Amino acid sequence: MTLPEHSLQRHGLLDLYGVDAAAARDEALIRRALYAAAEAAEATVLAEHFHTFGGEGGITGMLLLAESHISIHTWPEHGHAAVDIFVCGRLRLEAAHRALCQHLPAARQHWRIIARGQH
Amino acid sequence: MTLPEHSLQRHGLLDLYGVDAAAARDEALIRRALYAAAEAAEATVLAEHFHTFGGEGGITGMLLLAESHISIHTWPEHGHAAVDIFVCGRLRLEAAHRALCQHLPAARQHWRIIARGQH
Repeated sequence: MTLPEHSLQRHGLLDLYGVDAAAARDEALIRRALYAAAEAAEATVLAEHFHTFGGEGGITGMLLLAESHISIHTWPEHGHAAVDIFVCGRLRLEAAHRALCQHLPAARQHWRIIARGQH
Repeated sequence: MTLPEHSLQRHGLLDLYGVDAAAARDEALIRRALYAAAEAAEATVLAEHFHTFGGEGGITGMLLLAESHISIHTWPEHGHAAVDIFVCGRLRLEAAHRALCQHLPAARQHWRIIARGQH
């Protein structure tokens, strides 16, 4: 069965726990992780923005995609990173998830896929 | 009871249906809607990026916040807008939701709040 493109908006919510604090403050590493996820998804990146809070703070970053977005917010003090992989169309969401996890190792993760626009 | 700040990451997922197609292609209107939501939330905007696909396409946009992000993707041809309001700390999520809806009217909506980082 072929589903219409519009019913294929999938929003992956990934909470990583036990992330190394230094990794969670490393903007270059975080940026590579998001680009690896975008490439694995076969997405087209339109724009990026990354912000380092400095000191004990983490990173917040975003890739705006032709097919929606990938975002990350990290809390190094809690070893936590919250990642969103929101894709429409036939993009490879699970491959993006795997690529992200390879670049940003965690002791534990919570991965959920939420359907968007399914009406 | 005072909850620790870290347990207060709330991710609001808003799917709007029956959005006017012209509104869903109006970058200035969409930008105002996101800024109104950020202001209502009492959030600090770090950066913004908006993209107009042109022709029959919609808008994709993002406010990066000191307290996470607000994003939108619109599909004018389906009257659909998918909005994320991801906030940490004591920000006013419901006020942000109301402000967004006031600026971008819809016939119907689906609003969900997902806890993030709740171990």
